[in-house]
Amino acid sequence: MPDLYAQALDELAAVFGRLDSQEVDQAIGAIAGANRIALYGVGREGLQIKGFAMRLFHLGLKAAMVGDMTTPPVGPGDLLIVSAGPGAFSTVLALMGVAKQAGAKILVVTAQAGGEAARQADHVLVIPAQTMANDRPAEKAAISVLPMGSLYEGAQYVLFEIMILKLRDRLGIAAETMRGNHTNLE
Amino acid sequence: MPDLYAQALDELAAVFGRLDSQEVDQAIGAIAGANRIALYGVGREGLQIKGFAMRLFHLGLKAAMVGDMTTPPVGPGDLLIVSAGPGAFSTVLALMGVAKQAGAKILVVTAQAGGEAARQADHVLVIPAQTMANDRPAEKAAISVLPMGSLYEGAQYVLFEIMILKLRDRLGIAAETMRGNHTNLE
Amino acid sequence: MPDLYAQALDELAAVFGRLDSQEVDQAIGAIAGANRIALYGVGREGLQIKGFAMRLFHLGLKAAMVGDMTTPPVGPGDLLIVSAGPGAFSTVLALMGVAKQAGAKILVVTAQAGGEAARQADHVLVIPAQTMANDRPAEKAAISVLPMGSLYEGAQYVLFEIMILKLRDRLGIAAETMRGNHTNLE
Amino acid sequence: MPDLYAQALDELAAVFGRLDSQEVDQAIGAIAGANRIALYGVGREGLQIKGFAMRLFHLGLKAAMVGDMTTPPVGPGDLLIVSAGPGAFSTVLALMGVAKQAGAKILVVTAQAGGEAARQADHVLVIPAQTMANDRPAEKAAISVLPMGSLYEGAQYVLFEIMILKLRDRLGIAAETMRGNHTNLE
Repeated sequence: MPDLYAQALDELAAVFGRLDSQEVDQAIGAIAGANRIALYGVGREGLQIKGFAMRLFHLGLKAAMVGDMTTPPVGPGDLLIVSAGPGAFSTVLALMGVAKQAGAKILVVTAQAGGEAARQADHVLVIPAQTMANDRPAEKAAISVLPMGSLYEGAQYVLFEIMILKLRDRLGIAAETMRGNHTNLE
Repeated sequence: MPDLYAQALDELAAVFGRLDSQEVDQAIGAIAGANRIALYGVGREGLQIKGFAMRLFHLGLKAAMVGDMTTPPVGPGDLLIVSAGPGAFSTVLALMGVAKQAGAKILVVTAQAGGEAARQADHVLVIPAQTMANDRPAEKAAISVLPMGSLYEGAQYVLFEIMILKLRDRLGIAAETMRGNHTNLE
Repeated sequence: MPDLYAQALDELAAVFGRLDSQEVDQAIGAIAGANRIALYGVGREGLQIKGFAMRLFHLGLKAAMVGDMTTPPVGPGDLLIVSAGPGAFSTVLALMGVAKQAGAKILVVTAQAGGEAARQADHVLVIPAQTMANDRPAEKAAISVLPMGSLYEGAQYVLFEIMILKLRDRLGIAAETMRGNHTNLE
Repeated sequence: MPDLYAQALDELAAVFGRLDSQEVDQAIGAIAGANRIALYGVGREGLQIKGFAMRLFHLGLKAAMVGDMTTPPVGPGDLLIVSAGPGAFSTVLALMGVAKQAGAKILVVTAQAGGEAARQADHVLVIPAQTMANDRPAEKAAISVLPMGSLYEGAQYVLFEIMILKLRDRLGIAAETMRGNHTNLE
């Protein structure tokens, strides 16, 4: 395996070495206990959130992406999951405000534990990885081989997969059931 | 009202004057009787299909857009609704093939009654309007003021709204119920 | 043509009878004079904004939808076009704030001339039509046959088409040039 | 780092250990030499393709996602990049047919070197990872900890990032230039 791949995977491993597994378990509990689950993210973070949404749907949960055509309203008992890698995005904060006022709970996935989104969340899941908030450190040695927010987004991918495995076990969903929920319209 | 607006509305009125109301009723019956409803369209036609999907969801039907994150598979008892204004699109035909093989029924909305998509459909709803298949007639007087497929797409918009009204009455859904299904995450 | 279609078209005609053509011309001027044009809208309003974005692209303008993968940043000389039918949406206001701070101009399309989005806009284009802000009038006779925001959205469709015609003439774009910009990947 | 994360990263490393670096270089050459680049993928594969499209755009290349509002037509000199992890998808094959007939070249990313999409491609980039085509092996020990096509999709993520790094160097694009192309409308 050439160096760049190994370096990228090493950086991802280092992120998971710093991950707080209690936060992961709490996030899983919030998801398992929610009624409706709406998800939102911007840019490439949003793509990873979308992939997570699809797997939650495969698990049989009532998940929907904000912006899709068939997204219900949220209220008490529901959960909004957002990503705000660098700490905050204008539209993420806007939707958090709407959800909170409607009585829904909010899970923020972020790299910035002290960021504005995290401060307003009910549950915070910190992915301790470089984002565009800190991709220009003073010492060049500290910079990730993956540009901009790519380390955070790659860590999202792996983390969300592991969370799906844990949720599958917790909810007792068979692998074949997940497969059966996969669309054939491709 | 300036001339262009009036001309556009007159052209739309002429389309509805040529519409076969029996086809509309049959399409409504197919929708009302379906279990899951998946919808698909390309380009600007696809946008109008998406708007229709959202209103079907507001009616409480199990509707989903192909390409969204939470679209289920289709099979017997389900309905795939596609738009193929000029008669056919490669991806529309491809998805129709998948749906048919899985046992789902297909409703094709098109301007070309004899087009390839219509020929393979279970239900056809013809919107007799100009599309990119015939936006360059020999006589310039015959051309719509709306460019390319815009007359077809505008007619889709109005037709789908009227179909929603008819479905609402047929299914006995209250206006407040539809409103209650509208997302607040905007 | 059955009554419902005629009624819908009559309601649209009434909207255009109340439209301020000076506002339309000013909006067209803002678009023609902009460098980059970013567009955004939520829900079904957003679909009509997307259709407008595609036609602006067909005209050869540097248009991009917020949320698409290839949307550039905006700054001085650029224009953000948003829709806020009922006056405001949280994410619309959020993006307006970002654009304004970056030095871009903002065109708001809305049914509420005095709404929060309009108040913060550089250019306002009022579509005087029912939206979800006023779809439950005291007198039932005043309600549109089109439910919720459908009258506003239908008026968006027609208005944007007419604006494209005017822009085409103003910019001297041939119909064949527009057609040549249409994607074949469908 | 708990076991599951390590296991997922180990599986990814094994995929990259089997990767043909010549194929990667050829794919990079095809991208660097293309005029317009259109990209397409379905489901969660499609999300990773979208993330790649955004980074190609950040590099300053003329990239566009099929289905976005501002996607141009493709023809001679252009490149269509698609993903077909399990070998083929109906809509992927459909778009490949359109692109080929229009004279564009095609790069297929897949886990199935002998699949239908690969056979019709100009360039093939094989990611030797489990997909839904082989996620139910006879021996359970052979199955990835990541369900369904998740190993393939995760490998796409990392591979595309490394390809962006190589393209950045090859094209001589500064990190700050990439950053400057990132949208602020979030």
